[in-house]
Amino acid sequence: MKASGLITLLTDFGNRDGYVGAMRGVMLGIAPQVRIVDISHEVPPQNVRAGSFLLAHHSRYFPQGAVHLAVVDPGVGSSRAVLLAQTPAAWFLAPDNGLLSFLWQQPGVQFFYANNPKFWLPQVSRTFHGRDIFAPLAAHLASGNEVEKMFAPVEQIVIDPRPQPQRKRKQVSGVIVYVDHFGNLVSNIAADQVPGDLASCEVRFGTAQLGRPARSYAEKKVGEPLAIVGSFTYIEVAINGGSAAQFFPNYGEMQLVITAS
Amino acid sequence: MKASGLITLLTDFGNRDGYVGAMRGVMLGIAPQVRIVDISHEVPPQNVRAGSFLLAHHSRYFPQGAVHLAVVDPGVGSSRAVLLAQTPAAWFLAPDNGLLSFLWQQPGVQFFYANNPKFWLPQVSRTFHGRDIFAPLAAHLASGNEVEKMFAPVEQIVIDPRPQPQRKRKQVSGVIVYVDHFGNLVSNIAADQVPGDLASCEVRFGTAQLGRPARSYAEKKVGEPLAIVGSFTYIEVAINGGSAAQFFPNYGEMQLVITAS
Amino acid sequence: MKASGLITLLTDFGNRDGYVGAMRGVMLGIAPQVRIVDISHEVPPQNVRAGSFLLAHHSRYFPQGAVHLAVVDPGVGSSRAVLLAQTPAAWFLAPDNGLLSFLWQQPGVQFFYANNPKFWLPQVSRTFHGRDIFAPLAAHLASGNEVEKMFAPVEQIVIDPRPQPQRKRKQVSGVIVYVDHFGNLVSNIAADQVPGDLASCEVRFGTAQLGRPARSYAEKKVGEPLAIVGSFTYIEVAINGGSAAQFFPNYGEMQLVITAS
Repeated sequence: MKASGLITLLTDFGNRDGYVGAMRGVMLGIAPQVRIVDISHEVPPQNVRAGSFLLAHHSRYFPQGAVHLAVVDPGVGSSRAVLLAQTPAAWFLAPDNGLLSFLWQQPGVQFFYANNPKFWLPQVSRTFHGRDIFAPLAAHLASGNEVEKMFAPVEQIVIDPRPQPQRKRKQVSGVIVYVDHFGNLVSNIAADQVPGDLASCEVRFGTAQLGRPARSYAEKKVGEPLAIVGSFTYIEVAINGGSAAQFFPNYGEMQLVITAS
Repeated sequence: MKASGLITLLTDFGNRDGYVGAMRGVMLGIAPQVRIVDISHEVPPQNVRAGSFLLAHHSRYFPQGAVHLAVVDPGVGSSRAVLLAQTPAAWFLAPDNGLLSFLWQQPGVQFFYANNPKFWLPQVSRTFHGRDIFAPLAAHLASGNEVEKMFAPVEQIVIDPRPQPQRKRKQVSGVIVYVDHFGNLVSNIAADQVPGDLASCEVRFGTAQLGRPARSYAEKKVGEPLAIVGSFTYIEVAINGGSAAQFFPNYGEMQLVITAS
Repeated sequence: MKASGLITLLTDFGNRDGYVGAMRGVMLGIAPQVRIVDISHEVPPQNVRAGSFLLAHHSRYFPQGAVHLAVVDPGVGSSRAVLLAQTPAAWFLAPDNGLLSFLWQQPGVQFFYANNPKFWLPQVSRTFHGRDIFAPLAAHLASGNEVEKMFAPVEQIVIDPRPQPQRKRKQVSGVIVYVDHFGNLVSNIAADQVPGDLASCEVRFGTAQLGRPARSYAEKKVGEPLAIVGSFTYIEVAINGGSAAQFFPNYGEMQLVITAS
């Protein structure tokens, strides 16, 4: 795989304080031709699991050879490693704290840790490795520098075990794992984990009967809750023209249960 | 008109969930050299009118040959068409839900709808046409692909009728149609719709007498309300050093009345 | 110094209303090859001091020859000048309202004011010089146009006097000057202004004893307050896994006192 010169960024740094701007400056100083593309800087602060969820899904839409730089890093400054995953499609650079769990046991993946400070900024702060270590490494990778110069192989990475949907006979049950900007409630049940025929199964969320999955939001009346295969290819609970997170304020404690007809 | 290779984006997807990041990935996979420029991703959710207002004004500042991609799409997944408008200045790609109303009857405009799934992603979700249909079409347009291959002409589009200012003799009255980040209240009265001489007319907002339009915020005392020709070239109500939206919490029900002196 | 073709943006315009999008359009119309990089558009509205703080720190991380365009401009439309600072490293373009105070008396700096409307947009609004004056000037500078054509030298600029840390013998005391997205409280005491050995000094914030500066957030228990040399190289008050701004809601009135051991 050849580096495409594309770097994507996913962080919980926000867009307010200029932290991401400083990272961009560092990258452009090292690799002036690199293209930098934001995935998100509004990952809920220090929420490694949410960051991992977004990275796993959105990174698939980028062309081969990108460097995906992800920094959600509550352990910055401690001894947690700086992790690189190389897959047949891309490089992923992130703190070794579970953020790259979704790559574990992927076909063809190799893991490395950063071991050569020559490729970092000369001054490394205690609180901002995004700027001082990750950004320079991403720029070097994106401009074609060899992995072996900057990283050493590693066998084990930190894994964050996620809640898995529970299956019994003709029924699968799951929980909400992500809430988006529109208030859509994204479950951990993938469309292809639904038992039987998706179009004819019955969906229940807590005590609310949602009926069969909708084919579009507009299929239901405005204000009415529905289940739908959402943008992440997971079953979501949504409201036509509204926010399901507001409609179901206790969504965090509710079960989503799907039964084959 | 030749495509300039520039794509602008305006959506209500927010910057948090990575939805726009996935769209960028799709576009860069199809057209690696394209330039992608954000207008806004913080259009109030599902507010087609606000999105249309912003697009109409800001798109004028871009050089000829841009593709303006706008997605505020409560009807995603339903049968609403994917609309293209070609003007002498640019292409506009959006759901056919009123978002492009401002182009209706513009000189030289032609409308089309997307009819060739060969130019979309192979898998089209029910909830995210921004990524699966709009982004690939924008990338193909921006890299010079012919409109005729991807779209067919259409005669009628969905029009969103907006509140128009009311004129009688030496007086014009209007309403607030947009509130910006600073709390400035933007009316539907354009500077050139003011009767008589702009500098000497009298402005009233609800029961508040604002006097003559100010030439700058700083002309008034800090905390004092004023009328001014704002950044959109419409009459705005503002507060020097403050938020007019907070000062006039009932702005949605208030009339702005301008009387020639 | 040669222009690198890079423009950074720092404003209080927010990312919602498309104001920055219009600025990007103007710049790309004038200089299609220019690269535009955001530092922040979420500077607290009209907070010149916060904008100045962010610009001073983050601009250092960009390679030589960038144009740093900063617009936090409560006096837009009044007679305040449009200021350019040229340093050996970069150009800084901003309203003359204190935003560039940090460059005053820097070695090799020269100041200018914009005096040639030929390089502005033909129509200059009363409320949006960012789009109508600053953006075109930045684009011309970044594409190598000569300073002398667009600006005239100026001797004096507006200076915003900031609170300085107070030193007496083995003690230095300061105040909080910036609060970031994580709730970290950034003081005005630089790491190299701490008396004696940084690792062994004692830190007090208001009446809270924070002990010695931490070497990483993770050194303390989750939820515990700590002092640390932060990303801006100033002493910060932080909470491992939490928000110090929430923990110390009266931070604005509290003193940070550091005593050599």
